[in-house]
Amino acid sequence: MRVYNFAAGPSTLPLSVLETAQKELLDYAGTGMSIMEMSHRGKPFMAVNDEAQALLRELLGIPEEYAVLFVQGGATQQFAAVPLNLMQKGKADYLVTGNFASKAYEEAQKYGDVAIAASSKDKAYTYIPDMKTLKVRDGIDYLHMTHNNTIFGTRITELPEIDAPIVADMSSSILSEEIDVTKFGLIYAGAQKNIAPAGLTIVIVRRDLIGKAAPICPVMLDYAVQAKNDSLYNTPPCFPIYMAMLVFRHIKALGGVKAMQKINEEKAALLYDFIDNSSFYTNRVNPKDRSIMNVPFVSPSEELDAKFVSEAAKAGLVSLKGHRVTGGMRASIYNAMPIEGVRALIDFMKKFEMENK
Amino acid sequence: MRVYNFAAGPSTLPLSVLETAQKELLDYAGTGMSIMEMSHRGKPFMAVNDEAQALLRELLGIPEEYAVLFVQGGATQQFAAVPLNLMQKGKADYLVTGNFASKAYEEAQKYGDVAIAASSKDKAYTYIPDMKTLKVRDGIDYLHMTHNNTIFGTRITELPEIDAPIVADMSSSILSEEIDVTKFGLIYAGAQKNIAPAGLTIVIVRRDLIGKAAPICPVMLDYAVQAKNDSLYNTPPCFPIYMAMLVFRHIKALGGVKAMQKINEEKAALLYDFIDNSSFYTNRVNPKDRSIMNVPFVSPSEELDAKFVSEAAKAGLVSLKGHRVTGGMRASIYNAMPIEGVRALIDFMKKFEMENK
Repeated sequence: MRVYNFAAGPSTLPLSVLETAQKELLDYAGTGMSIMEMSHRGKPFMAVNDEAQALLRELLGIPEEYAVLFVQGGATQQFAAVPLNLMQKGKADYLVTGNFASKAYEEAQKYGDVAIAASSKDKAYTYIPDMKTLKVRDGIDYLHMTHNNTIFGTRITELPEIDAPIVADMSSSILSEEIDVTKFGLIYAGAQKNIAPAGLTIVIVRRDLIGKAAPICPVMLDYAVQAKNDSLYNTPPCFPIYMAMLVFRHIKALGGVKAMQKINEEKAALLYDFIDNSSFYTNRVNPKDRSIMNVPFVSPSEELDAKFVSEAAKAGLVSLKGHRVTGGMRASIYNAMPIEGVRALIDFMKKFEMENK
Repeated sequence: MRVYNFAAGPSTLPLSVLETAQKELLDYAGTGMSIMEMSHRGKPFMAVNDEAQALLRELLGIPEEYAVLFVQGGATQQFAAVPLNLMQKGKADYLVTGNFASKAYEEAQKYGDVAIAASSKDKAYTYIPDMKTLKVRDGIDYLHMTHNNTIFGTRITELPEIDAPIVADMSSSILSEEIDVTKFGLIYAGAQKNIAPAGLTIVIVRRDLIGKAAPICPVMLDYAVQAKNDSLYNTPPCFPIYMAMLVFRHIKALGGVKAMQKINEEKAALLYDFIDNSSFYTNRVNPKDRSIMNVPFVSPSEELDAKFVSEAAKAGLVSLKGHRVTGGMRASIYNAMPIEGVRALIDFMKKFEMENK
């Protein structure tokens, strides 16, 4: 029996995508081989690589002046790749709104002069700083931000008006809502939340920003090398790219990102409304900054939190334990979580509240 | 219908492993989730990660003083990671015996003083230099070599007697023959040839060599960070790690690396004997340096080579085209290629020779 899986990443995938992968696993498209077994330079895989890129371009409206790269190492590797590629003046500012934002800021210090444009650490990362109050220095190469904070359940809904390129980590929000790619210099995302199995990282980068990597940049982290080779400089993570293609087809068939956003907003509204109307459950995030992907909440006590997580799992609602930094619970309701899963969670929350009030 | 797939990598996987993966794809071990969908910090995946490491240690006899890491980026990323971690005196020597050996040497130049200990470029990489003639400098941090040259079909069967640690790229030979891990300071291998789908890189490193990475080393490339976190510093490539575990179980069930080596030597001997006794096919490699994993060969003309590759594919023997650098044909006969595949190839070669002599 399949469960409702609220894991923050790796996370639930569309059932129909898994079923297709299962069906094709021993023989992809009549080749007599699994998609995992074939040369990345052969026609069948090259077609997958091309279709995945074309579909992502279509879904996000990515213009030709941006390169789309399929790389490895997760967002954490991008924390180094971004400064190694983009820090040509040696100066960048960071918006520190959570755990990963903070790690990105720390990693960048290895490569240049970095400063904090704003931080929400003062209130345990439960809000997004006002974009009008950012301290953005003159002459920076870029401003880095985390678009959605997976652990703390916040998201950026408004961008600052600045001259420097904006670099955004969209690991937990990519394809969940419509964005204007041209407002960003670079977008990156680990695939394992909203796209595909772990092992694939998406980079979308304005072409005029690349080609000037630091001399010490490892060749695998050089965006220009990856762009020139269509992400096939060496063997790419073929299976996650194939899974991404299937997920992109699935999203397109459902009506694209606009349709995903509508259902994601509906799912999030259901859950937040229930929490806000409850005297038992609390979400501590500033309402206007709430994520539509990750919903952290607590019950009246740590003991009840632990009981909740354990009993929910028995009821087929799994991976609801909050991150070790925040405690409590967290429901990650990515694209692939059906609204029925959110309804089932709310029903369980009601029942648990009645039994434990 | 499954074909015999002689691809150099990604390459054929054991059918029984693919069948297990297919069966479990929607529900791993009764969790109600795919192995691709679950948190890398949850018990089911942690058990996979632990078992994969334990089995690899058992199969290769890796002592406790070596760390085993599951990372990303392929061997090409290790071309940078090795000098970034190991070049504490800033000096290393490279044995240049092929395309990837040469790329490793080039990448290392970004990080220190590197020199060529020996090269076989003079004879188009068709031999391995005599280990007694290497020019190994005093005070180097390590000597780097490519254990098996996938493109040129050579392999190292003897190690030099030197004081510095030996670093070996075993991407196309790992688990194909018994090795004494303690003769090496570091072994790395892209998994996509002899182990698992692309997206996983294995690193086996003596613990006393790590913990002194260059300050500019990206955190994801820092072996000490990966070792300390059991390769879970960030989200690892979970699915390839799971597949590696299944392949390791499979190799163990077949009798371990010793048994694999015996069958690999038998497969290689069948093919080389046939080629050597033929006046139609030629393998240009120095006989004592021949790879038991990758067997390049040519027919009397380029036209016949092209016809061979095309007709073989129609007969269900696929991916026999040689690398673009060498031309001709190449049969990669990794662990997962059954001896029946090699026999079928030889039968086809006989038939093709008769029809085209």
